Amino acid sequence: MSIVRHDQNDIMSKVVEHNGVVHVAGNTADDNSVGMKEQTAQVLVKIDGFLAKAGTDKSKLLTALIFISDMSKKSEMNEAWSDWIVAGNHPTRACVVAELGSPQTMVEIIVSAAK
Amino acid sequence: MSIVRHDQNDIMSKVVEHNGVVHVAGNTADDNSVGMKEQTAQVLVKIDGFLAKAGTDKSKLLTALIFISDMSKKSEMNEAWSDWIVAGNHPTRACVVAELGSPQTMVEIIVSAAK
Amino acid sequence: MSIVRHDQNDIMSKVVEHNGVVHVAGNTADDNSVGMKEQTAQVLVKIDGFLAKAGTDKSKLLTALIFISDMSKKSEMNEAWSDWIVAGNHPTRACVVAELGSPQTMVEIIVSAAK
Repeated sequence: MSIVRHDQNDIMSKVVEHNGVVHVAGNTADDNSVGMKEQTAQVLVKIDGFLAKAGTDKSKLLTALIFISDMSKKSEMNEAWSDWIVAGNHPTRACVVAELGSPQTMVEIIVSAAK
Repeated sequence: MSIVRHDQNDIMSKVVEHNGVVHVAGNTADDNSVGMKEQTAQVLVKIDGFLAKAGTDKSKLLTALIFISDMSKKSEMNEAWSDWIVAGNHPTRACVVAELGSPQTMVEIIVSAAK
Repeated sequence: MSIVRHDQNDIMSKVVEHNGVVHVAGNTADDNSVGMKEQTAQVLVKIDGFLAKAGTDKSKLLTALIFISDMSKKSEMNEAWSDWIVAGNHPTRACVVAELGSPQTMVEIIVSAAK
């Protein structure tokens, strides 16, 4: 089965397709001067774009792994998440706290989707 | 390939099936007043139930990702884990420390299984 | 679809194959007296070995999840990573901070690959 890679940079591919599954790299907000809800919304827009590159979309999400920098802001992340996910097509999810790439980075999301 | 989702709530599906693989969401103990071994045992019972909803079981586990709140209690988690896994059918595993959904939550486990 | 497991110990299989995908357990350095770059290089050699047991190699990587103990040393991890990955065949990747199995352990890497 072939492997298709998209948006490859020096250290990763942002999207990898294989065997009917689309894997998206961990994404963070480009503008991390804003709060948790806004950063999450930015991340989800980026994920939409990466899913589209592989010919799929958020209605086909399989799994999500969410790292947040501060559990007290989980509800703010969830607001953006709930605005984004497609009713009836929710992926599995786990959300834990981790220190992310910069002190200002509040959320990083990894997803997989069916194609 | 079709996607089958089970136990969908406001933010996730607890189980998603696709292409012969069953993905189970991150699970934590419902009663987190108890210790690490007991919380882990609760989580594993929940995972058994979710695997059953997708028509599979722990003998077909592929992967496990375990987040614990305190590395000094890893051996207690491992006691419950070792009591649960099926000899000859162990999944891959990684276990790292993360702050979880509440200060009392000591363990969260994400698994995938073949169907 | 059959499941093939390699290097099974008391708590996990180091490699599990299913449906054309090879899952490798979280790996850490055997000698954690050295620095981040050296630990990462050790981990990647171990991953090479596990991929080989499943009849695949790093040119077929799909995903990588990297936990490091100290974000200030991410660039050192990246040096070993960049030396290792195959140009044109980069996996997806996410890298976050987590406390690992021992205070000296600086990096743990989980990968999946196509077969």
